[in-house]
Amino acid sequence: MNLNEAIEKIRPPDEQFEQKAAARLSDQARPGGSLGMLEDAARRLAGMARSLDVHLKRKVIVTCAGDHGVVAEGVSLFPQEVTAQMVYNFVDGGASINVLARHAGAEVRAADLGVNHDFEKNLPIFHEKIRKGTDNLRRKSAMTRREAILSIEAGIRIAEQLHTAHSVDLLGTGDMGIGNTTPSSAVIAAFSGIDPKKLVGRGTGIDDTALTNKIEVIRGALDLHTPDPKDPVDVLAKVGGFEIGGLAGLVIGGAALGFPVVCDGLIATAGALIACELAPGAKKWLFTSHRSVEIGHQFMIDRLGMEPLLDLGLRLGEGTGAALAMELLDAATRVLAEIRTFEEVSIRNAQKQ
Amino acid sequence: MNLNEAIEKIRPPDEQFEQKAAARLSDQARPGGSLGMLEDAARRLAGMARSLDVHLKRKVIVTCAGDHGVVAEGVSLFPQEVTAQMVYNFVDGGASINVLARHAGAEVRAADLGVNHDFEKNLPIFHEKIRKGTDNLRRKSAMTRREAILSIEAGIRIAEQLHTAHSVDLLGTGDMGIGNTTPSSAVIAAFSGIDPKKLVGRGTGIDDTALTNKIEVIRGALDLHTPDPKDPVDVLAKVGGFEIGGLAGLVIGGAALGFPVVCDGLIATAGALIACELAPGAKKWLFTSHRSVEIGHQFMIDRLGMEPLLDLGLRLGEGTGAALAMELLDAATRVLAEIRTFEEVSIRNAQKQ
Repeated sequence: MNLNEAIEKIRPPDEQFEQKAAARLSDQARPGGSLGMLEDAARRLAGMARSLDVHLKRKVIVTCAGDHGVVAEGVSLFPQEVTAQMVYNFVDGGASINVLARHAGAEVRAADLGVNHDFEKNLPIFHEKIRKGTDNLRRKSAMTRREAILSIEAGIRIAEQLHTAHSVDLLGTGDMGIGNTTPSSAVIAAFSGIDPKKLVGRGTGIDDTALTNKIEVIRGALDLHTPDPKDPVDVLAKVGGFEIGGLAGLVIGGAALGFPVVCDGLIATAGALIACELAPGAKKWLFTSHRSVEIGHQFMIDRLGMEPLLDLGLRLGEGTGAALAMELLDAATRVLAEIRTFEEVSIRNAQKQ
Repeated sequence: MNLNEAIEKIRPPDEQFEQKAAARLSDQARPGGSLGMLEDAARRLAGMARSLDVHLKRKVIVTCAGDHGVVAEGVSLFPQEVTAQMVYNFVDGGASINVLARHAGAEVRAADLGVNHDFEKNLPIFHEKIRKGTDNLRRKSAMTRREAILSIEAGIRIAEQLHTAHSVDLLGTGDMGIGNTTPSSAVIAAFSGIDPKKLVGRGTGIDDTALTNKIEVIRGALDLHTPDPKDPVDVLAKVGGFEIGGLAGLVIGGAALGFPVVCDGLIATAGALIACELAPGAKKWLFTSHRSVEIGHQFMIDRLGMEPLLDLGLRLGEGTGAALAMELLDAATRVLAEIRTFEEVSIRNAQKQ
């Protein structure tokens, strides 16, 4: 599927199953609405899976990696080489996302969307490199419009591969890319028109001077490019990143193919936001996993109009928040299927007598 | 152990293991502090278990049940019989807590602290009935001072039984008791001196008129009894409940015996609060699982000075929030043990060459 075909293909989840789920939830032997956000998630998942007994057996987290020319402006604490090193660490199984995915019963698949390194062809990752890192968005457009579309389509292709291999009931999205809180913050600033000063955070932990610099870098980039907030591909091309495009594509792909996607924090949500600006129908297949410490994230969440499941003070990325939220989504499916209704309780009691 | 012996026995978790855990967490190959509350939980659990590789294998949720004379004042939507019916439902495995505990890999054990029903002696619950329901706290003291102490000691005894059977690494506390948001709200009002109007919620879903009545019932009870906020047993006796005493005892027992306890929402936190007012050292063994929709809960959390792990809009009780939080605590132990440090990553890389 190319981008337009994928957008065309998006249908809403099944409303009848949502209604059946809502009816069952309200018939269960407990006060109505007492399981809060789990009920909402359970109802939505029923509509997506067209079942009241949803089993999210095959959970996959795709961690999209890319490098960023804007690191030349001193926006990150870590050197660019770390992006490639972490991709190896994901494959090797010892990174944060591996640990939390294992706990959630999910598989981790790394994807190279634009890392500044030549990975071995047989390395078990998705090889979808657009280019070895974006250009420095403070000086020129991060990528061309064509590259922006290609990066989204790479994400769609990954979703298709997972779908074709029947290997996904729930997809989590995560990121790795030194410097990528800068383009992510620029993306929400471009869409919302909010002054970068109000929405830029410290990323991996930069100090006051570096923070002021980061704000100026984003302001400068927006002044230079004036990305069109009504044209999400333009925003992605001018101030985004390859992995952010890939993350957008995963959300569009999931929505087109009909499986739920749960996005991680700042960077993954920037991708999800681009997806939903391009294809508002994708939102119906999306869950936001957690509220990031990065302040820009709240503005993304507000724009999406969604409530994240967790608020644990995370700011790691990689898909770690998505992995944790998968356990709650799993729990939500059990709530719907297994908590007995008042009727089921009385039938059981009658049978025992 | 009686109450005083248990309080005397409480020791703080091992600081050296907390420090070792903090050092390992900050050496891991990720930005410092980036796993937020999970890091704090991991550090604390290491101190409690005296290990950097903590396995919370044996998880138990004890759901304490009791009835309340104050239901005569029309403070609840549900009839009192539901308390006993739900205890049977817990044993039968079809209640909300059974479903969420199963998902968390935890066992559910119901405990009768004061249900208005004669349970069969062979029913597999903890039989710790003090009396068949408290007196109507609006008219007289909910229980005697001696009964209050007995209810706490019943909770301590349950903790001891679980400990002696080597069957608990993490204890969750939950409640069942029609009408018990009223005594729970009265408990925090008594400790904090805050006007009931500001901290009383709708419980299982009462309307405006019933809410006004509930506020007046609590105000009236506090005016009648003037419980001494510096004497937690007095507070429990005059405006509490038998299951609330049991829930306090579980926290004190866990702290005395040296295992972590995670408390559920409004009612379980009322118990935890009484425990920590009696024995401030117990707080070091306590986790708060979630922020309840019930507004009084926030005042309890503030008074404990702790941050709950989840905020999902729950208001069910039974231990459901505690069950969900157990999965996060489990994840926290894996974070500490399994995420590689920068040194471990480089050793592995050297070995591969």
